Amino acid sequence: MSKESTLIAALRALAPHPAARGLQDDCAVLDFGGETLVLTHDMMVEGVHWLAGQDMADVAWKLVATNLSDLAAKGADPIGVLLGFTLGDDDTRFLTGLNEALTAFNVPLLGGDTVSANGPRTLGLTALGRATSRSVPDRRGASPGDTLWLTGPVGAAMLGFEALRDRTSADSTAFRRPTPRLPEGRALAPLVTAMMDVSDGLLIDATRMAQASNVTFAITSASVPFPPSLPPERQDDAMRWGDDYELLFTLPSGIEPPISAHCIGTANAPTASPVIVDGAVLHGSLGYTHD
Amino acid sequence: MSKESTLIAALRALAPHPAARGLQDDCAVLDFGGETLVLTHDMMVEGVHWLAGQDMADVAWKLVATNLSDLAAKGADPIGVLLGFTLGDDDTRFLTGLNEALTAFNVPLLGGDTVSANGPRTLGLTALGRATSRSVPDRRGASPGDTLWLTGPVGAAMLGFEALRDRTSADSTAFRRPTPRLPEGRALAPLVTAMMDVSDGLLIDATRMAQASNVTFAITSASVPFPPSLPPERQDDAMRWGDDYELLFTLPSGIEPPISAHCIGTANAPTASPVIVDGAVLHGSLGYTHD
Repeated sequence: MSKESTLIAALRALAPHPAARGLQDDCAVLDFGGETLVLTHDMMVEGVHWLAGQDMADVAWKLVATNLSDLAAKGADPIGVLLGFTLGDDDTRFLTGLNEALTAFNVPLLGGDTVSANGPRTLGLTALGRATSRSVPDRRGASPGDTLWLTGPVGAAMLGFEALRDRTSADSTAFRRPTPRLPEGRALAPLVTAMMDVSDGLLIDATRMAQASNVTFAITSASVPFPPSLPPERQDDAMRWGDDYELLFTLPSGIEPPISAHCIGTANAPTASPVIVDGAVLHGSLGYTHD
Repeated sequence: MSKESTLIAALRALAPHPAARGLQDDCAVLDFGGETLVLTHDMMVEGVHWLAGQDMADVAWKLVATNLSDLAAKGADPIGVLLGFTLGDDDTRFLTGLNEALTAFNVPLLGGDTVSANGPRTLGLTALGRATSRSVPDRRGASPGDTLWLTGPVGAAMLGFEALRDRTSADSTAFRRPTPRLPEGRALAPLVTAMMDVSDGLLIDATRMAQASNVTFAITSASVPFPPSLPPERQDDAMRWGDDYELLFTLPSGIEPPISAHCIGTANAPTASPVIVDGAVLHGSLGYTHD
């Protein structure tokens, strides 16, 4: 999940952090005890990050999955999570989903805190991981000539969200129960020049990577993977919708990824437009931005 | 800050955590690389943990201080913090106080997340530390014959809270800007048989330590340190009020602490009452329990 915020930027300026490297990303990367620790903290708010009335088991799953997705983008093995939880009426469902996610991804709950509050509930999760590659990927390393890749389709979460919102019979799994690309991230980490998870939308996240790397990405829309159920006229929407948690990465020219992935474009010398699709500059909202 | 909650207990039962030791406490303690990592996560809610309208600079300070107090009780050196922040109208004051606390305790901000929400704001902080002692203290190790100690007075935060609530001219610093006992914790960690911070009140926290250690503490009220401004008739209140963040610890008989501290009692063989004061069992509410 992305957290480009004015506040965090202001905090960074206020509080230097010599111990950390990789702070331009969603994760903190720290040398500790001869190894490299990767840390992330993401929040979810009722009515913002989940629909009021949504099954809290799915919310718990997503809270875990989105944080682990940040670790996946670093090629890190999860070590454990700390939970900040606002108590509610359906905590049993939350517990069920939390346990399902922790079991599915083999991650222990290390601790946390619970509070009571009136109003929309806020949840927070801190995830810790151990870097598996000496060079921990970030979004800054893409160079002109690199190829741009995506581990899987974008748009499935959008369709899932719409199914849930409109109470249709379409499959909402991709929105409710995303899968962090942990094995893929570990396999890719030693090879990529840049990597991040697509949490807010392909176009906005590609823009962020392009800006951080000082390149322009030329994306070919016909190469972008979409779910089979996506109507062709929704492909542009799908590139602007988030929540799919696939990995977006770049490789030096000629290097093939060791896992199944889709080459969707190339990195070129920077222009005024960080991302162009089918040769055209982008217009309109690029994707979803959380506060 | 304490977080004895049914939810966390249920989560522990659901999700075993073979990587963690010390989970009976407020911190997770993990071997990582060749060192020991100590982690804690505490939340604060507007209207519950701080007064609506309170200066957000003080709230930021307290959020940092209470988490670092958990590290102090482990004898850990803080490495950094991750912030979960709900945006509000007075974020500049929050930033100011956060920077003051991070500077005062020499702790970097490593990252975090920000969200917008309607209703009372929820804040979360994850603090990381490096254990400085091979044996990381917890609350389970007190034995009959040990002496019971407190690093400083209890009751100052109560008086500070009342000054703030009643808008009197009395000093509210102890409530607004507590100091985590980091140097004291580091000095004590190799020596103590049990240690914790007094976040919820001396009597309730002593009860928790006694129960975890299977002893009964006999406390002599005349030995308990109180602030000079405390009226004698408020001493019982002061032992039941939290937020002072002094360290409560036990030492083997005959061992003197290497820092200034007050011997307030002894550990005896367990009885039906985990804590007795001046020979009498306790009645009434023992202290403040956060949800």
